[in-house]
Amino acid sequence: MSDLPGLRALRVADDGSIDVLDQTRLPFERVTRSLVSLEDCARAIATMQVRGAPLIGVVGAFGLALAIRDDPGDGALQAAFERLARTRPTAVNLRWALQRVRACVSGVPPAQRAAAAWRQACDIADEDVAINRRIGDAGAALLRGLADRRGGAGRPVTGAQPLQVLTHCNAGALATVALGTALSPLYVLHAAGLPLHVWVDETRPRNQGAALTAWELTQAGVPCTVIADNAGGQLMREGRVDAVIVGCDRVARNGDVANKVGTYLKALAARDCGLPFYVACPTSTLDLALADGAAIPIEARSPREVTHVTGRDASGALVEVQLTPDGVAAHNPAFDVTPARLVTALVTERGPCGASQAAIAALMAGSA
Amino acid sequence: MSDLPGLRALRVADDGSIDVLDQTRLPFERVTRSLVSLEDCARAIATMQVRGAPLIGVVGAFGLALAIRDDPGDGALQAAFERLARTRPTAVNLRWALQRVRACVSGVPPAQRAAAAWRQACDIADEDVAINRRIGDAGAALLRGLADRRGGAGRPVTGAQPLQVLTHCNAGALATVALGTALSPLYVLHAAGLPLHVWVDETRPRNQGAALTAWELTQAGVPCTVIADNAGGQLMREGRVDAVIVGCDRVARNGDVANKVGTYLKALAARDCGLPFYVACPTSTLDLALADGAAIPIEARSPREVTHVTGRDASGALVEVQLTPDGVAAHNPAFDVTPARLVTALVTERGPCGASQAAIAALMAGSA
Repeated sequence: MSDLPGLRALRVADDGSIDVLDQTRLPFERVTRSLVSLEDCARAIATMQVRGAPLIGVVGAFGLALAIRDDPGDGALQAAFERLARTRPTAVNLRWALQRVRACVSGVPPAQRAAAAWRQACDIADEDVAINRRIGDAGAALLRGLADRRGGAGRPVTGAQPLQVLTHCNAGALATVALGTALSPLYVLHAAGLPLHVWVDETRPRNQGAALTAWELTQAGVPCTVIADNAGGQLMREGRVDAVIVGCDRVARNGDVANKVGTYLKALAARDCGLPFYVACPTSTLDLALADGAAIPIEARSPREVTHVTGRDASGALVEVQLTPDGVAAHNPAFDVTPARLVTALVTERGPCGASQAAIAALMAGSA
Repeated sequence: MSDLPGLRALRVADDGSIDVLDQTRLPFERVTRSLVSLEDCARAIATMQVRGAPLIGVVGAFGLALAIRDDPGDGALQAAFERLARTRPTAVNLRWALQRVRACVSGVPPAQRAAAAWRQACDIADEDVAINRRIGDAGAALLRGLADRRGGAGRPVTGAQPLQVLTHCNAGALATVALGTALSPLYVLHAAGLPLHVWVDETRPRNQGAALTAWELTQAGVPCTVIADNAGGQLMREGRVDAVIVGCDRVARNGDVANKVGTYLKALAARDCGLPFYVACPTSTLDLALADGAAIPIEARSPREVTHVTGRDASGALVEVQLTPDGVAAHNPAFDVTPARLVTALVTERGPCGASQAAIAALMAGSA
C-alpha cells in the first residue's frame, strides 16, 4: 500500500515492533515512537499518544501480540488482555480487536501463538486501511458528482475555484492506521488531481481540527484553512462551501448519528443552505441494537478542556493557559446527536447508504 | 441609578474625569483606569481597554468634552474630534456621539463650552443606561412569560430548575455603560428573584463569552456556566435551554440580524428545537436604509485571532500561545447574518417587535 495518499499513523517495523506518531506532540513536533512491548502499547493508548477508536483498536491488538511473544502462556495472555482493555474502557474497537487476537490463539500450541497473534494484528491493521480506502472511493464519487454538477451550473471546478468541503474534528489518517474515514474521500480526490480546498473547524474544546486535521492535510499537500467553529454557517451562507463531511462515533438503527460535539450545528446549517451533509461511517459503527440517537449516551468530559488550552508559546514551549475567570463552572459534552433527517448519506465501505432504518437494513442484508 | 443590577463599565468621577474598567485585563485583573484627558480617552478606545459600540461612543463623547475643557477654541475642537473618530473608524456610535457633543457647543461662547459639552456627554451615558433598562424590562417580561408557561406545564421554575438562557458573545454591561442589551433582561430577572442560569458560549475566536460575559455575570451573582460554542445545540436537544438571547450589531429593514459570528448556528438550533430566539436591539441599531442582511458587510479580522489565543499561565502571567501548525492559513469572519425568519422577536427599548419589515416600520412609526 505504498501508493496511499496521506500519512500513516502506524507502521509495522521490520524488527517486529510498531512505529506510531506521537499525537500529543502534534502539530508542533513530529515524533515517532517505537512500541516494542505490551507496556509501550498500553502507555501510548493511555496517554493519548495514539487516539481515534480504530487506531486504538489496532495498537491494542499489537500490544497483545507483543505480550504473547514475551510469554505465550494463558495466564500472561489474560493479564495482558485486561491491562490493555483498561486503558480506554469506552472505546469499543479496542475490546473487539483484543478479542480477535485472543480468539486466534485459542487452541494453538504456545510455541506457535506469537506468530499467529502477530499475523492477526497485521490483518486488523490492513483491514482498517482497506475499509478506509473503500470509504474514500465511495465518498469521492459523491463529491465528484457535486463538482461536476456545479461545473455544469456555470461555476466550473478549476484551480481558482476548487471544490470546497467543510469538515469537523479529526476523522483522518491520525484517527486510523491510514487515510481516515471522513478525510479519505478528500485524499482520493486530491490524488486524482481534483482541485480541492478544505475548511477545517478548529473543533473546540480539544482543537483536533486545528491541531491534527490541519496538520495531516498540510502534510499531504491538500489546501486547507482553519476556521473557528462559529464561522462555518456564515461560509455556507456566502456560497463558499459545497459539502460537509464528518466521521462518526456511533450510528443508531434509524440513522441518527453521534459525533464530536458541534456536528449537529453544521448539519443544521448545511440543510438550511441546501448543501449535502455526509457522514463517513465504517459499518462497524452501525449500532443496530439502538433504536435511535436518544439512547446514545453523551460523555461529559473534564471542564478543564473548556477553561484551559495548551499551545506553543513564543519560546517554542508547550504551555497550558487559563481562558475563563477563576471559579466559573464549565460544562463539556464531548458528542452530540445529529438527527437522521439532516444526513444526506452515510458513506460506508459498502457504498453510500441513506440515513434511514430501511436503507441501513438493506445495506447490511445485501452483504451479510 | 445606584440600584442598577450588574456592574458599571464607566463612572463619572467627582473631579470631572471618568473611570473605566480596563477590559484588556479582564477576567484576571480588575483594573480601573481614570481618564482625565482627550489622549487618555483616545488611547483607551484604540487599545480596546473599552469596547462595545455603545461604550465606545460614550467614552468618545467624554474625550471630546475633556478636550474642550482644555482648549475650547474651534481649531482644537476639530482636531480632537478627528483624533477620536480615527481610533475606531467603523464604530458608528462613536461618530454619532462625537457629532452630538460638537453640535451642542456650536454657537456657544467659548467660556461656556466645557460645561455644555460635559453635560451632553453625561446625557449620552445616562440615555444608554435608560435604553438598556427598558430593553431589560421588555426582555424580562418575555422571559418571565416563558418561565410561567413552563411552570404551568408541570416543570416549575424553582431553585433546582431555574430558567435556562443561552447567550453568545458579550452584549452585557461591559459593552455599554451599564446593564448591557442581551444581558439586561437577565439582570432584571435576577434582581427580581427569578431563579436563573445562563449558558455562556465561550465565543471563539476572541472569547468574549468566556472572558467577559462569564466575569460580569459572576460579579453580579448570576449563576452561569461556560460552554464551547459547539455545545449549545446538544444542550437544546437535551431540553436544558429555555431560550436564547443575543445582542446585535445591525438589523436590516426586513429583520435580518448581523451579530457575532456563530449567532446563526444557535438560531438554527433554537428553531430546530422549538425554542425562542430573541435579539436585544436598541432602535439605534435598526438600519432602515438596508433592504436585507445580504447588504451587511461582514468584517474579516486577523487570522491570528484564530491561530493564537491569550490566557493566564500557571505563574499568573498573560501568555499568547499558538494553536495551529506553522504555515496553515486561517479565515476569521467576525460576524454572521441570521435570517429574520429565525428570530422570534427583537427586544427594543420601545418594546418587543417582530423581525419583519412591517413590524419594524410600525414600531418606528408608532413612536416617531
